[in-house]
Amino acid sequence: MQKSFIQVEKGSHFPIQNLPYGIFRKQKDEEPRVGVAIGDYVLDLAVLHESGLLKIEGEQDDSSIFRQRYLNAMMEAGSTVWKAIRKQLQQLLDEGEASLRDDMELRERAFTKIDAVELLLPVEIGDYTDFYASKEHATNVGSMFRGKDQALMPNWTHLPVGYHGRASSVVVSGTEVRRPNGQMKPPGHEFPIFGPSKQLDFELELGWFVGHGNVSGEPIRLEEAEEKIFGLVLVNDWSARDIQAWEYQPLGPFLAKSFATSISPWVVPMDALEPFRVQGPKQEPTPLSYLEHKKAAAFDIQLDVSLKGSTMESIETFISTNFKYMYWSMAQQMSHHTINGCNLRAGDLLASGTISGPEKSERGCLLERTWRGEEPITFSNGDKRVWLEDDDEVVMTGYCQGNGYRVGFGEVRAKIAPALEM
Amino acid sequence: MQKSFIQVEKGSHFPIQNLPYGIFRKQKDEEPRVGVAIGDYVLDLAVLHESGLLKIEGEQDDSSIFRQRYLNAMMEAGSTVWKAIRKQLQQLLDEGEASLRDDMELRERAFTKIDAVELLLPVEIGDYTDFYASKEHATNVGSMFRGKDQALMPNWTHLPVGYHGRASSVVVSGTEVRRPNGQMKPPGHEFPIFGPSKQLDFELELGWFVGHGNVSGEPIRLEEAEEKIFGLVLVNDWSARDIQAWEYQPLGPFLAKSFATSISPWVVPMDALEPFRVQGPKQEPTPLSYLEHKKAAAFDIQLDVSLKGSTMESIETFISTNFKYMYWSMAQQMSHHTINGCNLRAGDLLASGTISGPEKSERGCLLERTWRGEEPITFSNGDKRVWLEDDDEVVMTGYCQGNGYRVGFGEVRAKIAPALEM
Repeated sequence: MQKSFIQVEKGSHFPIQNLPYGIFRKQKDEEPRVGVAIGDYVLDLAVLHESGLLKIEGEQDDSSIFRQRYLNAMMEAGSTVWKAIRKQLQQLLDEGEASLRDDMELRERAFTKIDAVELLLPVEIGDYTDFYASKEHATNVGSMFRGKDQALMPNWTHLPVGYHGRASSVVVSGTEVRRPNGQMKPPGHEFPIFGPSKQLDFELELGWFVGHGNVSGEPIRLEEAEEKIFGLVLVNDWSARDIQAWEYQPLGPFLAKSFATSISPWVVPMDALEPFRVQGPKQEPTPLSYLEHKKAAAFDIQLDVSLKGSTMESIETFISTNFKYMYWSMAQQMSHHTINGCNLRAGDLLASGTISGPEKSERGCLLERTWRGEEPITFSNGDKRVWLEDDDEVVMTGYCQGNGYRVGFGEVRAKIAPALEM
Repeated sequence: MQKSFIQVEKGSHFPIQNLPYGIFRKQKDEEPRVGVAIGDYVLDLAVLHESGLLKIEGEQDDSSIFRQRYLNAMMEAGSTVWKAIRKQLQQLLDEGEASLRDDMELRERAFTKIDAVELLLPVEIGDYTDFYASKEHATNVGSMFRGKDQALMPNWTHLPVGYHGRASSVVVSGTEVRRPNGQMKPPGHEFPIFGPSKQLDFELELGWFVGHGNVSGEPIRLEEAEEKIFGLVLVNDWSARDIQAWEYQPLGPFLAKSFATSISPWVVPMDALEPFRVQGPKQEPTPLSYLEHKKAAAFDIQLDVSLKGSTMESIETFISTNFKYMYWSMAQQMSHHTINGCNLRAGDLLASGTISGPEKSERGCLLERTWRGEEPITFSNGDKRVWLEDDDEVVMTGYCQGNGYRVGFGEVRAKIAPALEM
């Protein structure tokens, strides 16, 4: 197993096998730049490039793609460039490679403790698309809203259902999320009422950034879809269920979702997930040929959701699930997204929809986990939750378990602020 | 009535009362810049500014906001700046004002025939939101899909229903639109099929660009919404009805819309529409207070749709309707959009949804106009249409009729190219 000269604690999310990209700065007034996480450190790629150790193939010899507010410039440089950067980093950080290891002056300038930096929203997002790719999730939600017999719509097993989300309100982990106000129509009311959502929920998802797009009119084929993915993040697709129930017909969720979507700051490269590729669920009926996989296209990623309420002493994990349960693969979602000619662009975010598994403890949102309130969650101090309360902090995390190492996603964390008084 | 020294033909869309903004270039390799339409001419604002005649308040003395690929820099300069620019232009172009009128050398450099320039997509669009604000349209479509009794969903009269659209595929007038491929499930089929859409449609809409946004968490109040609008364009929201019918439940339209949305190149300032403000339809029940208007908030804008098929000799108008029919106002749509705290940003596009009136000839899409195919349209050479055919050209246009002048939108025009063979 490859090791770095940077010490990586057992259980760390960021060994040399991972090397996720992020945007960081040390001080508010400092120019942001691209960094890579290794152990407890962020490695400054601008500094590393300027030292001459890191080279950019086929580019002018400057570090401008690393001196950026967003990763988009690096994405637009193309996958040959990202792949070459990753390869060099895995070499430069290796325990047996002296060039960086033994240059203490450079190490001093290039590495900073992650705890000491501010991590910013890593990507300037063009369009954000959210899917609905978990069969367990779609079945559970459908059962609650339309009854067991009509749980899955007839289209669900034939195509990855998706919809456009709101890009402007995607925020990075740590950003406070304000409880939304809105219209809802509680049972028994003749008219809708206005006020703070009383059914605030999260949705545990994974998202991926398009690195390479496609030209309008020219679909991305299933076989080439994965190559176009730059990397993945954790996504918390906050949802106000009472607003959603009232507004969503017939055009889908809108204000129930658009107030905020939180993502983790580190973008895990697609290549880092390759060892964790597994066969997804059997697809029956067989999808139409443009969606028919010839190879395994699911990924074994363990995911957890934890919560800390203001009266709880410590944070408690109450959902543990896995990305491998997803019925539709990332490649199928991307290929379907473009089959009509729709163009994806570098920086677009696609997300999976709530990730749920077959067990109760594997259901990735409160709506399902509490079965719309029928089965409240009880925490160890006796606190109960059906929906989120003000000051609740929700933390999602995830990793792939390798042999002696973990490729992790870090976390996406946010606290609920009270609704604006209106 | 104010007149310009630039001759404006009777019926022209671009008198001195209008002065819409666009982005143009004279040659492919030329740097694009901001222009204003007057009569048959585009006036180059960069040249006008550099001449010293046009001043930008509170800005450095350079023309960088006019030397841009998009109008966003001008939007971001703030409404004080746009309003000051418009005021100066209306003064400089006045027939009684000598400074520009008598400077033939400057006029030579500053004016170009619109026919001789390329008009580009005027705005870099962040998020695109599409509403469903015509009661006639929602009732007609609902009747066809769900029967007359359930035509309008219970929420429709309480809130402006909307959904997120696709920003990447918004294109400027003149861009060819390729018929999309996709999944559909024709009546009588047990399984869905894949192929070119057979029910390609347009939707006549108006769209408006946010000039000023709002901070996340702080809604735009109804009274301040109109001030935040930079200007309006014609929108053709292309729709593949067979793809839509199969995919849209439960999360709304997705690939049926995302292949292309066409807009007109000239952005008509909100101020130019002020004389055409009228009372909209009575809203019953009275909306919740955050949506309750104290003043007239509809606009009298005449709109037409024309079509030319490849075997037709000339283009024929077959839909004439009006923006004043819209049940929900632009201000209501914006205010509702942000009531949950969702942030709008300069450059975001909001569109009205299909604009239909009470008469058959006032229905703004083929789905309604042909009542889902039951009543084909017959053109004067005998050609019939239920849905769009390859090589059909669709043209939408619109204007406000003033006393002796028109404030017009120009047109949004596009031709249908055959589907990609797959």
